[in-house]
Amino acid sequence: MTTGVRRRMGVEERRQQLIGVALELFSHRSPDEVSIDEIAAAAGISRPLVYHYFPGKQSLYEAALGRAATELAGRFLEPLEGPLGARLLRVMGRFFDFVEEHGPGFSALMRGGPSVGSSTANAMIDGVRQAAYEQIISHLGVQDPPARLELVVRSWVSLAESTALIWLDGRRIPRSELETQLVHDFAALAAVSAAYNQEMAGVVLRVLAEEPVDGPFGDLLTRLSTLAPSVSAVPPQRRP
Amino acid sequence: MTTGVRRRMGVEERRQQLIGVALELFSHRSPDEVSIDEIAAAAGISRPLVYHYFPGKQSLYEAALGRAATELAGRFLEPLEGPLGARLLRVMGRFFDFVEEHGPGFSALMRGGPSVGSSTANAMIDGVRQAAYEQIISHLGVQDPPARLELVVRSWVSLAESTALIWLDGRRIPRSELETQLVHDFAALAAVSAAYNQEMAGVVLRVLAEEPVDGPFGDLLTRLSTLAPSVSAVPPQRRP
Repeated sequence: MTTGVRRRMGVEERRQQLIGVALELFSHRSPDEVSIDEIAAAAGISRPLVYHYFPGKQSLYEAALGRAATELAGRFLEPLEGPLGARLLRVMGRFFDFVEEHGPGFSALMRGGPSVGSSTANAMIDGVRQAAYEQIISHLGVQDPPARLELVVRSWVSLAESTALIWLDGRRIPRSELETQLVHDFAALAAVSAAYNQEMAGVVLRVLAEEPVDGPFGDLLTRLSTLAPSVSAVPPQRRP
Repeated sequence: MTTGVRRRMGVEERRQQLIGVALELFSHRSPDEVSIDEIAAAAGISRPLVYHYFPGKQSLYEAALGRAATELAGRFLEPLEGPLGARLLRVMGRFFDFVEEHGPGFSALMRGGPSVGSSTANAMIDGVRQAAYEQIISHLGVQDPPARLELVVRSWVSLAESTALIWLDGRRIPRSELETQLVHDFAALAAVSAAYNQEMAGVVLRVLAEEPVDGPFGDLLTRLSTLAPSVSAVPPQRRP
């Protein structure tokens, strides 16, 4: 690779190049708006040659989606070290990096446009969601997650998706605020579940016990307490 | 209609009947698994006659989706009376009624299967989401919703969708628990946003001020306070 000798690309190398070119174009415009002609031009090859490597537009798009899905799932990988809040914040930072890098492609993918709404695409998206789910569960140190914990984690992953999509539509809120907010949303959704279920309460209290006061979870509790001391103080007083 | 005279159905009447038959079948199995032959048999007419009223499977499916979308949007309509928590709880009850009645059809619709993943279908789903969003905003008494309030409401609508989909997949948690949980999730997501934003804090405190202690929001606060008094008490003590 570093010999400086110009050479013809092999089949797999060319396929990977075309996938990269497609993803680059999808980061600026929706896949539905990007033609094979444009991908060929950007790759510096002829349109028929693109079809030599990919039998049709759909197969190239699915290959591009496959690489993007693998990369997105990778963004959720985080070492099992340190407080959970800080881990989740790093994951959200990498998640929003991906969303920002892929913009229209991410949007089209999640919203299921004509080019990407196939069964294959849906299966890949489900694969990313499953990888994200399993990664978060591993951070909670739970071997056999109860149904309520599974619900909290899966619905939080879906909340991260929808928050990112809303962010992309106008970018009216700074992404760093949304990254922190999603970490807090995780704590909030878990706390709501814990308020009604003993098993969930055990998980939440165990995690919170390891959180530093100046971490994202501690910070949220501090702000909530100072925001509305009257509100949070009312119910216990009126209870027997 | 009550004359007892048997008569041939008019075109629109027959179309509506076929839509109803299709939706009934979709409530037990995914649209992808239901054929035009089955719809014809259930309606008591021939297959060619179905095509007389609908040019193709896709057009019948989209018409059925259109009726379901209108009905689902209607479930979010709620009088602007009484505490917000109780209103949202009634809305969630009707939403889960719909989800339970339409089961596989709802699932396929939201997950974008081959029969329903068209642009038309996506536009209809977006229409339902928009109707739900506008309805909730109207209950908050806000004329020109700030970006953060819009985010909270839209992401909550999406959370309701994903929670319902997860519920359908095995029904391992009672739906009444999830209806209450989603009302609490709304409060939790709004509170997280309010913890970092003054404008959102104003909205949340105004709504909470009108909530009864024994309503769903008051109940949540009571349970959270009694669940972890030590956790919620820590940050204020350590603050100056």
